[in-house]
Amino acid sequence: MCKKPLVGIVMGSDSDWSLVKKSVDIFKKFDVEFEARVISAHRTPGLAADYASSAEERGLQVIIAAAGGAAHLGGVLAAHTVLPVVGIPVAGGALNGLDSLYATIQMPSGIPVATVTLGSAGPVNAALFAVQILGGANPELRAKYHDYKEELKEKVTKGNERINADLQD
Amino acid sequence: MCKKPLVGIVMGSDSDWSLVKKSVDIFKKFDVEFEARVISAHRTPGLAADYASSAEERGLQVIIAAAGGAAHLGGVLAAHTVLPVVGIPVAGGALNGLDSLYATIQMPSGIPVATVTLGSAGPVNAALFAVQILGGANPELRAKYHDYKEELKEKVTKGNERINADLQD
Amino acid sequence: MCKKPLVGIVMGSDSDWSLVKKSVDIFKKFDVEFEARVISAHRTPGLAADYASSAEERGLQVIIAAAGGAAHLGGVLAAHTVLPVVGIPVAGGALNGLDSLYATIQMPSGIPVATVTLGSAGPVNAALFAVQILGGANPELRAKYHDYKEELKEKVTKGNERINADLQD
Amino acid sequence: MCKKPLVGIVMGSDSDWSLVKKSVDIFKKFDVEFEARVISAHRTPGLAADYASSAEERGLQVIIAAAGGAAHLGGVLAAHTVLPVVGIPVAGGALNGLDSLYATIQMPSGIPVATVTLGSAGPVNAALFAVQILGGANPELRAKYHDYKEELKEKVTKGNERINADLQD
Amino acid sequence: MCKKPLVGIVMGSDSDWSLVKKSVDIFKKFDVEFEARVISAHRTPGLAADYASSAEERGLQVIIAAAGGAAHLGGVLAAHTVLPVVGIPVAGGALNGLDSLYATIQMPSGIPVATVTLGSAGPVNAALFAVQILGGANPELRAKYHDYKEELKEKVTKGNERINADLQD
Amino acid sequence: MCKKPLVGIVMGSDSDWSLVKKSVDIFKKFDVEFEARVISAHRTPGLAADYASSAEERGLQVIIAAAGGAAHLGGVLAAHTVLPVVGIPVAGGALNGLDSLYATIQMPSGIPVATVTLGSAGPVNAALFAVQILGGANPELRAKYHDYKEELKEKVTKGNERINADLQD
Amino acid sequence: MCKKPLVGIVMGSDSDWSLVKKSVDIFKKFDVEFEARVISAHRTPGLAADYASSAEERGLQVIIAAAGGAAHLGGVLAAHTVLPVVGIPVAGGALNGLDSLYATIQMPSGIPVATVTLGSAGPVNAALFAVQILGGANPELRAKYHDYKEELKEKVTKGNERINADLQD
Amino acid sequence: MCKKPLVGIVMGSDSDWSLVKKSVDIFKKFDVEFEARVISAHRTPGLAADYASSAEERGLQVIIAAAGGAAHLGGVLAAHTVLPVVGIPVAGGALNGLDSLYATIQMPSGIPVATVTLGSAGPVNAALFAVQILGGANPELRAKYHDYKEELKEKVTKGNERINADLQD
Repeated sequence: MCKKPLVGIVMGSDSDWSLVKKSVDIFKKFDVEFEARVISAHRTPGLAADYASSAEERGLQVIIAAAGGAAHLGGVLAAHTVLPVVGIPVAGGALNGLDSLYATIQMPSGIPVATVTLGSAGPVNAALFAVQILGGANPELRAKYHDYKEELKEKVTKGNERINADLQD
Repeated sequence: MCKKPLVGIVMGSDSDWSLVKKSVDIFKKFDVEFEARVISAHRTPGLAADYASSAEERGLQVIIAAAGGAAHLGGVLAAHTVLPVVGIPVAGGALNGLDSLYATIQMPSGIPVATVTLGSAGPVNAALFAVQILGGANPELRAKYHDYKEELKEKVTKGNERINADLQD
Repeated sequence: MCKKPLVGIVMGSDSDWSLVKKSVDIFKKFDVEFEARVISAHRTPGLAADYASSAEERGLQVIIAAAGGAAHLGGVLAAHTVLPVVGIPVAGGALNGLDSLYATIQMPSGIPVATVTLGSAGPVNAALFAVQILGGANPELRAKYHDYKEELKEKVTKGNERINADLQD
Repeated sequence: MCKKPLVGIVMGSDSDWSLVKKSVDIFKKFDVEFEARVISAHRTPGLAADYASSAEERGLQVIIAAAGGAAHLGGVLAAHTVLPVVGIPVAGGALNGLDSLYATIQMPSGIPVATVTLGSAGPVNAALFAVQILGGANPELRAKYHDYKEELKEKVTKGNERINADLQD
Repeated sequence: MCKKPLVGIVMGSDSDWSLVKKSVDIFKKFDVEFEARVISAHRTPGLAADYASSAEERGLQVIIAAAGGAAHLGGVLAAHTVLPVVGIPVAGGALNGLDSLYATIQMPSGIPVATVTLGSAGPVNAALFAVQILGGANPELRAKYHDYKEELKEKVTKGNERINADLQD
Repeated sequence: MCKKPLVGIVMGSDSDWSLVKKSVDIFKKFDVEFEARVISAHRTPGLAADYASSAEERGLQVIIAAAGGAAHLGGVLAAHTVLPVVGIPVAGGALNGLDSLYATIQMPSGIPVATVTLGSAGPVNAALFAVQILGGANPELRAKYHDYKEELKEKVTKGNERINADLQD
Repeated sequence: MCKKPLVGIVMGSDSDWSLVKKSVDIFKKFDVEFEARVISAHRTPGLAADYASSAEERGLQVIIAAAGGAAHLGGVLAAHTVLPVVGIPVAGGALNGLDSLYATIQMPSGIPVATVTLGSAGPVNAALFAVQILGGANPELRAKYHDYKEELKEKVTKGNERINADLQD
Repeated sequence: MCKKPLVGIVMGSDSDWSLVKKSVDIFKKFDVEFEARVISAHRTPGLAADYASSAEERGLQVIIAAAGGAAHLGGVLAAHTVLPVVGIPVAGGALNGLDSLYATIQMPSGIPVATVTLGSAGPVNAALFAVQILGGANPELRAKYHDYKEELKEKVTKGNERINADLQD
């Protein structure tokens, strides 16, 4: 990871790490430089402000923010940057993530946080969305994305074979 | 309002003002010094940080935060102060305030925002709660609060008279 | 609008137009070329497929999809393109947009639709998010976005003045 | 399965297969020819379009679509056919299927997807509903359905015996 | 309406009539014979049982049931017939139809009620679904349905023209 | 159980029996004669109608109805009797009983089903409520109920002792 | 109203009176003696305790409690009496009565509040349920209730005539 | 615990004790005198009234109330005291605590219960909030709270180290 990261992955607590690792897998697959940080909007507000404020000049292109409960992280980062911020609402807790979904997505006019799937698909889709953004200036990345879509189709074909084999039995 | 304010009322947008004015009415009734500010956690994050960080040394005892939608204001202020922060979730919008309720109350362990009624009772109850807090060091305020509870009872008595008059007709 | 559009705004019904116009206002403000289409995922599925499949080669960089109810439009477009698709869930109807929020955002692993605010802030934030994406390759646009953030702050300052004037009275 | 299938069962992922098998059990019980396919509205949109577009001329009478999350499958198939499409919302995930219920049933005016029970009764009831549809032109099938209703009654009688035996103890 | 009706439209209260009339419009458009009845599952349970029990021998092919609140009508009719029962959950009331949606669709294993859109699209889609069912044995009806799908497309084209005219201004 | 039952406990499926047994425990404790039946509103609609229609003349004073999902049982029984029907919404399933709560309680004007707690307290409270009803004509039962309330208090006292012992450690 | 009341109708605020009057209409129709009181569980807790504690000896047979928001009234009354307490959850406010429904019905094991329809049918059904309870010891009341059920049927017949007249036009 | 308690922790059932213990840990950490009681609003209403009525003169400064289901405890205590009452909604049960959240927070105008996080963070945050209130008159406590905020930051730093170590592997 010696090259300058293009994507900053921020999570509100290290307990989100096992989920957020799925974003890492996507970036490794697409060979996209990234960095990962635990930054709490509430426990380390100064750090959150500094991270987002300096993100543009440090060369980041996209910020991904994962948080649960009263998930303010995406909004707090978006408040301090002009970069696109992609929110991952983390499921779990008594409201099972409905709180994090609403707290992440319902941003007021002027400060968007574009939010992805609540649940295990969230970190995968956040990373893929970042790759789609980066693809605008990187034809190689875009080509890889076309390949990725073919892979998705192949999995469906395999699923089809499996269930029809099962039906023959 | 020449004396030093004890309570800071912060709202995320001046569109919340007509609602938040009900807090003002309570503070005037109890003769409690307050100040009111529009501070957006997302549009003016620096201002929010400065306001909360300096609140203790400026002599505030309680902060009230009113916001709607992805209501991060209470949490952002609480992140920067050791003062008690009371949250007013503002109803309205497509989710009718369920987003602001969850975004205000579901704070992570370590950073409480004590939240009051979603709906028109919210700003009244937030201000009353602040009065209850201040009452701990102010016996005169506590005495007034006992009177206030009597007033509440009298309204019920009047309501009773009204409906029984209606039944006689 | 003679230059090639960079953003395609797609709405599921022309009844969404009054809402989606707010996206148009943002693009005009930032001087970003766009196009707008009514395409129904259900009534004109072939058109949806064609639009998304050809979007990349036609030079679009971002697709915005606005739909209500069982809002499949974002997902259907995302299925046919490698471009980032930003979803606007349209409020209204018996479930007041909770259906469109869930149907837009809960995409399966592999096919992201990054979704913005349910409610009137949605089309504004979708357009701003597109501007943030385009800003990665366009320093001028990014500079304008910094200006825009200043404007947001000024509105808060004005709001502050208004409520404090009101308090003096 | 050498005769031409009358019902096409489509599922969005082979992970839905263990649930969807309950539809298969019903069709076997009623001796109704069917076929089963994994087709993803998002990963294989072309396949979905082709399947539904050709369904009528291939002799299918009913299509059953099972999907979870942002369950677009039923709607996407219905967009491409004049056959009745019966939706099975698959429970599970962070929203426990409320997303799939809303995304399946809340179709716009003009493109119905008739949706059955969210939960384990879903695939049973979807298949039974298909049998009811086919029964309109098949008196033998209708007769079997009358028998099936008698079976349901007998199960209740047995349940009664069981609890009353338990009460005697 | 001298020919024998093929579809029975049942509503729980005559207050549902203004909504249910939209089903009537569809049947008139497709020239499908129908009958309409107010039958309450709770106020006239005997009538409900008789209606459903005799529906098959009276030649009905499909029953449509519209009800609000604790909407038991679809389930009560389905209990007494082998015909397909299509449920229209009627929106309104304190829970805005979420009660009628759940009470209509969440039928136990063995007794399906296939349910359509909650909201104004419901009666349109219920009637269209009945037409799709009847189309299985009526090629003329199926041909009309293909025409209907073309009409839907044309409305989208017109919507497109309208918004692009608006954009030119 | 040789005396004539005063309460009829009806459940929609014998799978509800382990829950409904808690009602039985209460009736045994209060020495109230009861009977228990599995009657499905959907699988055995005729039985449901007969049971409720004959309940008054058979000497029943209260009917308790327990059902899950689209819980029509309480409403169907209430349609056929002038006796008070107490509904137990059974939790479980994909909507975790929210469907049974709404389907039981949201009865239209004219046909009440008085509904108790969703969850494990439901069958206890339904039975206690029946005892309260029967107490109107049975002073001995009422006296026992006063004793029962004392028992409830004693449990709280014991709980207090337990936690304070724990605190001393 | 010179005879001793059998039913006590209690409401948390005189703003509930226009709703609760529908209970009064039912009691007048059935000629059942009642009394009506405004008693707030929170503003007049002592009054609530006194009212419920003395209800039995004053000859009341049933208490009806109507309240909105955090509707504690039913539970507070039930805590102090062995009489059956019927809860009317009052709709309205930011959560549109979902709060009052849950706060009324979700009573812990041991203290039932049997709850009726959320919405305008609530006070009608609460009163009818009280009449059903009182009917156990009053054959005349029970006979009137049978008549009432006939009236309900007649309304359905009239509704039928109205819509069929409309269809003829 | 020989000094006079400043905070009274009240829980509705001793089954809440394992959760409420987290409040105790905070008070021990901050060296704040407290007392803990099991008091049921419904099973021991007199005790609840007495406890709250005498709390002020016994020297309590804050009352914390933890309850689940139809959680009336906070409201019932607040009805009888002018002290600030902080509510802990206890998760669990069929509605997973949504009932306790609404029943605790949705207090009517005049009787606030300031409510904290639904879920395991609740008792921690309730206790911290009480410490913030007490800090107004206790500079030493306030100093400790500043230290506590530093500890929170250190945990984030450690989390950061952990995930970056994991990334190096």
